[in-house]
Amino acid sequence: MKKLILLFLSAYMVSVASAQNSDSAMIRKIYSEILVNGKAYTWLRGLSVDIGGRLSGSQEAEKAVQYAERCMKQAGADSVWLQETWVPHWVRGMKESGKIIDAKKNAQDVPVTALGGSVATPEQGITAPVVEVHDFDELKRMGREKIEGKIVFYNHPFDETMINTFEAYGEAAEYRWSGPSEAAKYGAIATICRSMTNATDDFPHTGAMGYADSLPKLPCAAISTNGADLLSRVLRSNPSTQFFLKLNCEKLDSVLSHNVIGEIRGTEHPEEIILIGGHLDSWETGKGAHDDGAGVVQAMEILRVFKALGIRPKRTIRAVAFMNEENGLKGGKKYAEVAALNKEKHIVAIESDAGGSTPYGFGLDMKADKKAKIKSWAPLFLPYLIWNYDEEHGGSDIGPLKRSQETPLIGLVVDSQRYFDYHHAASDTFDKVNKRELNLGAAAMASMAYLLSMYGL
Amino acid sequence: MKKLILLFLSAYMVSVASAQNSDSAMIRKIYSEILVNGKAYTWLRGLSVDIGGRLSGSQEAEKAVQYAERCMKQAGADSVWLQETWVPHWVRGMKESGKIIDAKKNAQDVPVTALGGSVATPEQGITAPVVEVHDFDELKRMGREKIEGKIVFYNHPFDETMINTFEAYGEAAEYRWSGPSEAAKYGAIATICRSMTNATDDFPHTGAMGYADSLPKLPCAAISTNGADLLSRVLRSNPSTQFFLKLNCEKLDSVLSHNVIGEIRGTEHPEEIILIGGHLDSWETGKGAHDDGAGVVQAMEILRVFKALGIRPKRTIRAVAFMNEENGLKGGKKYAEVAALNKEKHIVAIESDAGGSTPYGFGLDMKADKKAKIKSWAPLFLPYLIWNYDEEHGGSDIGPLKRSQETPLIGLVVDSQRYFDYHHAASDTFDKVNKRELNLGAAAMASMAYLLSMYGL
Repeated sequence: MKKLILLFLSAYMVSVASAQNSDSAMIRKIYSEILVNGKAYTWLRGLSVDIGGRLSGSQEAEKAVQYAERCMKQAGADSVWLQETWVPHWVRGMKESGKIIDAKKNAQDVPVTALGGSVATPEQGITAPVVEVHDFDELKRMGREKIEGKIVFYNHPFDETMINTFEAYGEAAEYRWSGPSEAAKYGAIATICRSMTNATDDFPHTGAMGYADSLPKLPCAAISTNGADLLSRVLRSNPSTQFFLKLNCEKLDSVLSHNVIGEIRGTEHPEEIILIGGHLDSWETGKGAHDDGAGVVQAMEILRVFKALGIRPKRTIRAVAFMNEENGLKGGKKYAEVAALNKEKHIVAIESDAGGSTPYGFGLDMKADKKAKIKSWAPLFLPYLIWNYDEEHGGSDIGPLKRSQETPLIGLVVDSQRYFDYHHAASDTFDKVNKRELNLGAAAMASMAYLLSMYGL
Repeated sequence: MKKLILLFLSAYMVSVASAQNSDSAMIRKIYSEILVNGKAYTWLRGLSVDIGGRLSGSQEAEKAVQYAERCMKQAGADSVWLQETWVPHWVRGMKESGKIIDAKKNAQDVPVTALGGSVATPEQGITAPVVEVHDFDELKRMGREKIEGKIVFYNHPFDETMINTFEAYGEAAEYRWSGPSEAAKYGAIATICRSMTNATDDFPHTGAMGYADSLPKLPCAAISTNGADLLSRVLRSNPSTQFFLKLNCEKLDSVLSHNVIGEIRGTEHPEEIILIGGHLDSWETGKGAHDDGAGVVQAMEILRVFKALGIRPKRTIRAVAFMNEENGLKGGKKYAEVAALNKEKHIVAIESDAGGSTPYGFGLDMKADKKAKIKSWAPLFLPYLIWNYDEEHGGSDIGPLKRSQETPLIGLVVDSQRYFDYHHAASDTFDKVNKRELNLGAAAMASMAYLLSMYGL
């Protein structure tokens, strides 16, 4: 019996070893094909240079839908389709202005832009005293007495000591999202918020905010980090400094838009779907190159590489370019709704939405046994400098799938040091993305998709 | 006895654990200080913007010596001194030109620049048929019959399938270094060499070459990758295409220059030196920001952080800005010579000369027991995403120390994907370096230097 077990064990181990050998060879092929012939970079040029910024509801967003559809067909998907989703249509307006006004009424321009979803100021703008706060505790301590009738200036810088910049973002972003309504509680009339970035520059970095229904809706803007530092200095020398803010943003009627979906049908378990996605919409302050043109073109590249190498996946590989991640998540929610309605079985969903920089790991948002299965493949990824499985974040667009169907989520983890230099700002342009870094991200996800298509999860 | 051993062991383990705890706290302090108050980025601006490219023997190189001396004093080093070293003085000249000349004598300019050390062409330039070869085997097969009297065009692209771009560089660089003399064996009259880069651009990337003493010295230039692709296409349609090459570079008399050295004296074992270095000289085609301004300012930052945090190292910490890595290594050789003469004991030398990108490991060029000691500290570095100890390369400037004294070498390993986009080209400028990435490299080396100063090697 013992011998039999040993025999069985050793046969099993040989088969495991040989599977790992052939997997290792296939992953090498995937990397080589993508690094040499990859189309992601060319597709990203189309998306971020030819089309440019593409906020939900805009003409550019619709062009991006058509473009993604063409690219997925070009990639060789077995089928490509559009999935309807209603999206909000908010427009920034062209007459934004921010000025620091000193005691002698001298005005100095500083770069501001509306936070996504903000209401406009009156047409003539708002001029009012400005109070600087660093966090909500300070706001609360000041109370109505010191806040009422004023503009609140949230000056909460990124914590530079955090190694992963997403942690600093996570901690600072609440001032952007909740700041306006928190300030409204104490009678503020507008808010300006230090840009969410590690960079010291002149770009205001926008991003979504949300109003509490029960409170007045205050106009709210991001101010560049240089502008924030200047304002802070001016306030220290003269606390009665005023600020002029003008925003003419506007919320229009919702618009019918689309998620773009392309798939390669699985040969053995076509009903088991492996989703790889990114989001097609972007803030229109910049060109949406890192956020998230990169994720979209990487997902499309995965379709291409399977076809180029003649890989016939046992399970279905589905690339999704989601609409409206930035200001509503309507695309992600609609996708999960339709998946539930059609009783589709997503065995896993992977998202790349942390920029097109060098990948070094996978975030695993799933149960321990599934994590263990994925980690057992770690040796296959080490030669490609993919080593970290500690993050537990998947991605925003695939979040609704988890909430409705407990789908395990994977997020591509990439070097985060430069990401917030460009995030949601005019500087998020094609030239900031490096071709090899972008391709390495696509190759890491394609290799993961390959293993998942062979062995399930 | 057994109990005694257990008691001893457990006391030992407690002391190891508490050492690791306090080391972990100190490393956290080092990272925070550098990420928040680091001076490396400001110093790099001085070196790469205010001074600029600084080839050995140039006025800029001498300005860089004075600047590094000032910075090391500013960093708070206990002592700072210059170490004399003679360096070669080669100048590029301002009249470089390369043209593809078709059958109808139409000339098309392509970007070329002399390889470092090249002789000039005659003043009127050289016009001759050009033969493309991809490697030395092809050159050999062609032989004198097809090569004599012609310009050899080495078109050996980077192997994009390699994950670490330094491997691709290592494989391609021999055509730059040895190409001219190899071609001279078969009677060629000049060589042009595809730029050593992953980028597809219009910058010729220069770099050192070496002539064999016994062979004619051919003028030799780098051609941009776009230029190389164009020339290759033109040659395919018309193999009798000619090339015009004009170089007016010149070798002048050697110049007395300096390594710049700053140190913090060890409290317990001052005679045991931990060297951290980079090289001060750079090719003057660009501004020497990544190569190797980054390494120099990181080394200086290590002096600064020890002083800023009041760390009194048990062993001596010595920062060295080496002169003449790019075309002679005279600084590195002189340093090792003087160290031997003075019977100085370098317990380890660390170099950063792979650019200022995000660090992820340390290359260990040393014996197995010393490697094991360093790897035992790996858990302390993991929170900072430093995980890889597989490379076995230290650095060029510290190489002579190993050869003369068997000094163990450590090389900072950083993300390599973008490095060769800029390497030795006009695009190696300050704006290509990210402040946080640069600081993370300094912090990783400072933490390693701290552990080495506490525990030796």
